Amino acid sequence: MKSHRKIITLRVPARAGFVNITETVRDAVRESGVREGLCLVNSMHITSSVFINDEESGLKQDYLRWLERVAPFNEGSDPNKGGYRHNATGEDNGDAHLKRQVMGREVVVAITAGALDFGTWEQIFYGEFDGNRDKRVLVKIIGE
Amino acid sequence: MKSHRKIITLRVPARAGFVNITETVRDAVRESGVREGLCLVNSMHITSSVFINDEESGLKQDYLRWLERVAPFNEGSDPNKGGYRHNATGEDNGDAHLKRQVMGREVVVAITAGALDFGTWEQIFYGEFDGNRDKRVLVKIIGE
Amino acid sequence: MKSHRKIITLRVPARAGFVNITETVRDAVRESGVREGLCLVNSMHITSSVFINDEESGLKQDYLRWLERVAPFNEGSDPNKGGYRHNATGEDNGDAHLKRQVMGREVVVAITAGALDFGTWEQIFYGEFDGNRDKRVLVKIIGE
Repeated sequence: MKSHRKIITLRVPARAGFVNITETVRDAVRESGVREGLCLVNSMHITSSVFINDEESGLKQDYLRWLERVAPFNEGSDPNKGGYRHNATGEDNGDAHLKRQVMGREVVVAITAGALDFGTWEQIFYGEFDGNRDKRVLVKIIGE
Repeated sequence: MKSHRKIITLRVPARAGFVNITETVRDAVRESGVREGLCLVNSMHITSSVFINDEESGLKQDYLRWLERVAPFNEGSDPNKGGYRHNATGEDNGDAHLKRQVMGREVVVAITAGALDFGTWEQIFYGEFDGNRDKRVLVKIIGE
Repeated sequence: MKSHRKIITLRVPARAGFVNITETVRDAVRESGVREGLCLVNSMHITSSVFINDEESGLKQDYLRWLERVAPFNEGSDPNKGGYRHNATGEDNGDAHLKRQVMGREVVVAITAGALDFGTWEQIFYGEFDGNRDKRVLVKIIGE
């Protein structure tokens, strides 16, 4: 069994946004030499996501607006005023911990014949909900 | 290390609905000859899900009604009228991309002693949110 | 290829709550002897979750309050009165099946150099949404 590990470092210059990391994950698969296996891609942070969807700019706007409705930003810590208890720690990212659960922490992708075994439109995204700082994504590949 | 790949093709004759694919995944595990390993099952599309829950007809109605509340269908592309920017591409499935994120893209199931290592009520479902066309689910098994 | 299986049994003495199971999963990794591989951790039930987030008490309160807003508890089975069709089976946990989908069934974690390959704040939680009874979490490890 072979294994390969790669760290992707990125910084989203905004509170929230999406970065298409598909080609960097493809690089990791090539580097691994794995022909048949599994590829795990996960955020190493708890206020951001890795997920698979479509590379389409309107959709990315839809996600941000929808997530803002599902778990609105509020810097306060009083739930009766729309705040989050978590923000009593001095953070203002209570909403980001919730948004990340909706979008997910990780994806697992099959590797077949040395390539990501993807449907036509599948692309891997890093989803940031508490940005303006360096973050890391882990790629771990096992197989043969 | 062994690996096995199987494609499940299905068509849901409605905009949205669920298909229990547990037995087909069990077939794939048997075909693989793997006794100890992991089984990835994922939608190859970005408007549908693979998830694990209960085979109960009322629950399936609950999921559809709940998802419609969380991310309502709207064929328009104007967010101020409940539409989705994604629909400006000519699609009408902006809501389906959101519903899919709530329900998830994939499941990873343990294989133990040659079988899916499941709790009593666990069943694998394909969840369709933009149906009336052929779709594919990927099963990838690795192990020994 | 090595594999290892461990069952974690737990009981949350409330309808809903979270249990940090990180150290128990670390024990399983040590027991496995795996140095490079993948570790699957999943609920074996369909009204509870395994997820990764922060060990912070305010955040846990935020999750419970937020999930109650996204999928409110209601023991009834009439959707027009906020109930769930699923509850017509005699259950009162329709809401728990929905909450579990938001928080997820499973996590897959990389094992590198014999340890969980985690970011600074990542912790593994069991999330209960229909408690007061024994439940099981499965840990399955494969690698070398």
